[in-house]
Amino acid sequence: MIKFDYSNMMAENIGEEHGVGKGVLDGMAERARRAHDGVVAKKESGKIGFLDLPYDDALVARIREEAGRVSSEFENFVVLGIGGSALGNIALRTALNHPFHNLLSREKRDGRPRIFVPDNIDPDRLNGLFDILDLKSTVFNVITKSGSTAETMSQFMIVRDRLMQELGRGEMPKHIIATTDVEKGALRKMAEEEGYVTFTIPANVGGRFSVLSSVGLLSAAVSGIDIGELLIGARNMNARCSSPNMADNPALAGAVLHYLSRTEKGKAMLVMMPYSHRLKDVADWFRQLWAESLGKKYSTGGAVVHTGQTPIKAVGATDQHSQIQLYVEGPNDKVVCFLAVEEYNSRVDIPPLSGEEDGLSYLEGKSLNELILAEMRATELTLVKNSRPNCTITMPRVDARSVGELLFMLELQTAYAGELYNIDAFDQPGVEEGKQFTYGLMGREGYEEKRAELDDLEKGRITYTV
Amino acid sequence: MIKFDYSNMMAENIGEEHGVGKGVLDGMAERARRAHDGVVAKKESGKIGFLDLPYDDALVARIREEAGRVSSEFENFVVLGIGGSALGNIALRTALNHPFHNLLSREKRDGRPRIFVPDNIDPDRLNGLFDILDLKSTVFNVITKSGSTAETMSQFMIVRDRLMQELGRGEMPKHIIATTDVEKGALRKMAEEEGYVTFTIPANVGGRFSVLSSVGLLSAAVSGIDIGELLIGARNMNARCSSPNMADNPALAGAVLHYLSRTEKGKAMLVMMPYSHRLKDVADWFRQLWAESLGKKYSTGGAVVHTGQTPIKAVGATDQHSQIQLYVEGPNDKVVCFLAVEEYNSRVDIPPLSGEEDGLSYLEGKSLNELILAEMRATELTLVKNSRPNCTITMPRVDARSVGELLFMLELQTAYAGELYNIDAFDQPGVEEGKQFTYGLMGREGYEEKRAELDDLEKGRITYTV
Repeated sequence: MIKFDYSNMMAENIGEEHGVGKGVLDGMAERARRAHDGVVAKKESGKIGFLDLPYDDALVARIREEAGRVSSEFENFVVLGIGGSALGNIALRTALNHPFHNLLSREKRDGRPRIFVPDNIDPDRLNGLFDILDLKSTVFNVITKSGSTAETMSQFMIVRDRLMQELGRGEMPKHIIATTDVEKGALRKMAEEEGYVTFTIPANVGGRFSVLSSVGLLSAAVSGIDIGELLIGARNMNARCSSPNMADNPALAGAVLHYLSRTEKGKAMLVMMPYSHRLKDVADWFRQLWAESLGKKYSTGGAVVHTGQTPIKAVGATDQHSQIQLYVEGPNDKVVCFLAVEEYNSRVDIPPLSGEEDGLSYLEGKSLNELILAEMRATELTLVKNSRPNCTITMPRVDARSVGELLFMLELQTAYAGELYNIDAFDQPGVEEGKQFTYGLMGREGYEEKRAELDDLEKGRITYTV
Repeated sequence: MIKFDYSNMMAENIGEEHGVGKGVLDGMAERARRAHDGVVAKKESGKIGFLDLPYDDALVARIREEAGRVSSEFENFVVLGIGGSALGNIALRTALNHPFHNLLSREKRDGRPRIFVPDNIDPDRLNGLFDILDLKSTVFNVITKSGSTAETMSQFMIVRDRLMQELGRGEMPKHIIATTDVEKGALRKMAEEEGYVTFTIPANVGGRFSVLSSVGLLSAAVSGIDIGELLIGARNMNARCSSPNMADNPALAGAVLHYLSRTEKGKAMLVMMPYSHRLKDVADWFRQLWAESLGKKYSTGGAVVHTGQTPIKAVGATDQHSQIQLYVEGPNDKVVCFLAVEEYNSRVDIPPLSGEEDGLSYLEGKSLNELILAEMRATELTLVKNSRPNCTITMPRVDARSVGELLFMLELQTAYAGELYNIDAFDQPGVEEGKQFTYGLMGREGYEEKRAELDDLEKGRITYTV
């Protein structure tokens, strides 16, 4: 079971200036309860759907069947998606697949396909991917809820055309699996006309909360991850989070403590720092969740608030050699959240050196496991000694069940935090304008005014260049 | 030639509250000159060596020769290093190799080895690497300036032992290349006793400024990068930066503007956001450079200052779907620095759809290249419209020469910024304590007191767990 330790965020341990007072925390009990109840109310009204995802056994059965078919027919599985349609997939794979899955022989991969998530629309990257794929043995899972995301649909249009050129119009649809809204959008329409296999994204599940829907589960199942275990973990966490008391509900405790650190102690940044390389892309997935959910201009009442805390991904022990100097000695403006594992999936011993080299003998007979855990503890206590707030989420090990627990906890923590900030954690109005400017620049009909506005903005600027 | 455009950091374009005033910037001319001269003085006194790195033709010749030998004899080249001994290597490879280099056939790789930089000490990751490597055809480049870095040397001890077990005592040294100090440290001693090929890290070149030394150049040359072109780019930038005038020296202009944004406008974060997937690990390399150099507790005069700006890596267009909501609507506490390329190395056209799907026809006949550039411009102007400071570094394209220019510019910008903040940009005292705590935990002789201090710190804490 996952544990959340917030000792090092408390004033008793790091001082009043940067730590949360016990009395202040206790005084939040009623607001915490209301935040919890607010999320329950949103679920019951049907506004948010992610809390229902772990209970869809029929979907699990269908995905498993489809994953079996895909594995037997294809050598490569490519996810076309961006943002919430890519980050969850990547996070699950890095956490639970072999660290070099795509470089293993098919046999060592247990017959599972290689998995690719090109994610970005950089032309060099997509072109490079075509260099290594044999389209005959490749299936593309195109994921976009709206069915119109510019990056994903342009990738898809390129892929669909290539499939037709190389394999023919009749073969093309067999190489496409579409994951999109149940009825709306261009992708759904094409899927029906051309006969792709399809999966559905529930209308009330936003991209950043979709990892446990077909968005994240299909590629996970294809790569060999036990998706049933993932969902059991999520259910277990959901059960723990049925309590409106911070002392029992780790997601609620996390939401309140991070909220207080942000609003009372001015901690503008939250560093998610796993000491397991497997969890590095969970940190990246969390970046979207925390940033896009809580970074809002308006409160639900319409006041200008400019809320949010900037999430940062760091990886232990690597980033000790990159970021820790700043975290220990620079401005005291962040909270570090360690992701710890009690037990790694393997153990690597450090053998002795014959020559008894100066200054290395302390490593002999130890293991990498001991070293990385010692480094985490040393980093944690260095932060404490310098009055820098930090907390630790500990998993027993990185397996499907624990990862399901962790992801679900972080989703709930984010939803609760939205209630505390009194903002809508489930919209993203701030990305709309950039999209409209892009449409204007790309000459999309109906966006001529945005294009003109953009040209005016540019013309009005004074330019400084070196 | 690289261009630095800081129009959108100026008050005239984004307003007085968040933009730097023209008068304030002009008033910095004399301090800028002193910062420039301060770096020159450090170079001339021998304190810093990175400015000399681009001029070592003999080293280039030797590395090219060694890279040729390695390429003909080995199938895999593994870098064992962490922090400054890994980030530069990774940045060069991502920028300049094929995006899927390790998955190409040997022929498509022009006979070059596959390259691996495990970087972290996570036991699962190192163990996983052994699953895919045939040691007979693998060479390990172990990089640590001190010759005693715990993470690197423990990895090395494991690798050396495996080589002896599998290939025998006599073969082992042929599979090791040591890059370390010219005379000091355990690794140098072992290299001489056991007869490894060695390369030298100059004593006055710190890890985060070492990418253009043998630290970064050897793996680059082995992977097929033209290291001569890299250094020409660096020389070109160095020539431009010989001027003490901000109007001619892009690194100096960058240092002053970021300094003013931090100190006058409260911008606590600097987001490095390339719109080329190739440059994503340059952003990661920059994180170390900016964080570790400028995040300092003490000024050179000994005053407690807690300086620094937190660097953040974001990737366009991907992170538009993750971070832009926060950057546009959240607290106005960061500067976004776009890394733009005028021309990608390839072009991918978006073909028409037969069915004229609603809402997608605007993409037809365009290219991914146009789309990603339109997205960058749209994001830039959305930030401007919301008074969010940003700047753009534009490269003609991502090739070895331009990357050399870029890295050198960012190194100089960091060195100048250190002068402006009046701190030592070349030390890292804040990581020392964590290392000592680690030694204490690992039972290293002489660190019993640190162990006791750590135990006391832990014992004194009040624990809060959910």
